[in-house]
Amino acid sequence: MAASSRSRKRNGDERRRELCDAAIQVLAEHGSRGLTHGQVDRCAEVPDGTTSYYYRTRAALLRGVGKRVAEIDVANLQSVIDAPLEPLSPFAHLAELTMMQADGPGLMLNRARHELLMAAVRDPGLAETSQAFVARMNAMTRQAIAHLQPGTDDPALLDAQTTAVMTFIAGVFTRLAGGDRTISNAEQLARLLEAVATAVSLQRA
Amino acid sequence: MAASSRSRKRNGDERRRELCDAAIQVLAEHGSRGLTHGQVDRCAEVPDGTTSYYYRTRAALLRGVGKRVAEIDVANLQSVIDAPLEPLSPFAHLAELTMMQADGPGLMLNRARHELLMAAVRDPGLAETSQAFVARMNAMTRQAIAHLQPGTDDPALLDAQTTAVMTFIAGVFTRLAGGDRTISNAEQLARLLEAVATAVSLQRA
Repeated sequence: MAASSRSRKRNGDERRRELCDAAIQVLAEHGSRGLTHGQVDRCAEVPDGTTSYYYRTRAALLRGVGKRVAEIDVANLQSVIDAPLEPLSPFAHLAELTMMQADGPGLMLNRARHELLMAAVRDPGLAETSQAFVARMNAMTRQAIAHLQPGTDDPALLDAQTTAVMTFIAGVFTRLAGGDRTISNAEQLARLLEAVATAVSLQRA
Repeated sequence: MAASSRSRKRNGDERRRELCDAAIQVLAEHGSRGLTHGQVDRCAEVPDGTTSYYYRTRAALLRGVGKRVAEIDVANLQSVIDAPLEPLSPFAHLAELTMMQADGPGLMLNRARHELLMAAVRDPGLAETSQAFVARMNAMTRQAIAHLQPGTDDPALLDAQTTAVMTFIAGVFTRLAGGDRTISNAEQLARLLEAVATAVSLQRA
């Protein structure tokens, strides 16, 4: 690839990322019903027609956004795996990450994720992206849980803990997306996540 | 109220229920984006304009559907409170009820509930209905948990268990709404719910 072609590709990738970040905001604020190419152009402050140039159809745009949301979520979860262990509160970092979805850009991401989840019901391509994403998050959460509980190496126990912790976090995301703040801070959530992981392990013992 | 007026009122209530049940199906199949008065008329097999007559605006229709979903959920949860206790598996009934949202009419209800949750972000009236509903489900879940664990009467413990169990069930609903069957049967879920309730109680002990 010539240097100019590489630079065009890099610029194209960057532009797509910008458009998808704008589309996340449009989805969060106006819902799937309010997502149009024109609305994304306006939100990204780019010339009319830019979003249509990069994503010809609404389905292509939704799949682009789905991949972008997955990319952000994967990077966030990777930070839990890479962080040094906090022995006193192993689930603190995961809980903080989850509670970031209560406000600001995290809440936007959270709401966009729910819109995509529902849109995937009617879009097999998007559903495929979404299933691959859930499988990857599952593998990463399992790795994070193993990291948070050194010495736990029973694969069936890790699977069961992963299912329980991921389901609990999905519930927190849904409550926060709807503005329900019953779970209101990372300390409370860290204790709950630890309780869930411990309970599954006691039940299997 | 004269007999004929009572009968008109009853017929009106029944017609509204029919239309809302059709709207639940439309929301589940076509999303908030596909919900129109005409689509509900066709789904309910009623003359064109019927839904507009009972619900003048889209917002009124959404609030009607929100109330109908709440009515069904409340009746379902009441059945857990009213059921005789199964000492060997106290959470079995609640788990079965939850897993009914994996398929058929339960899945429709589940998907419609998620569409309403997201629509409420942009509709303060719907958000109010939804918050009142969450508060009521919270009180009922607390009552159900107290019923399932005779002898537990520490109010703070019951609050904490309610938060944990409701969050877990919200996560199961979200996973099922998106077609994720990691939690695949009521026995598995009953064990998980019991683990969650026990864990919270051990943590507070």
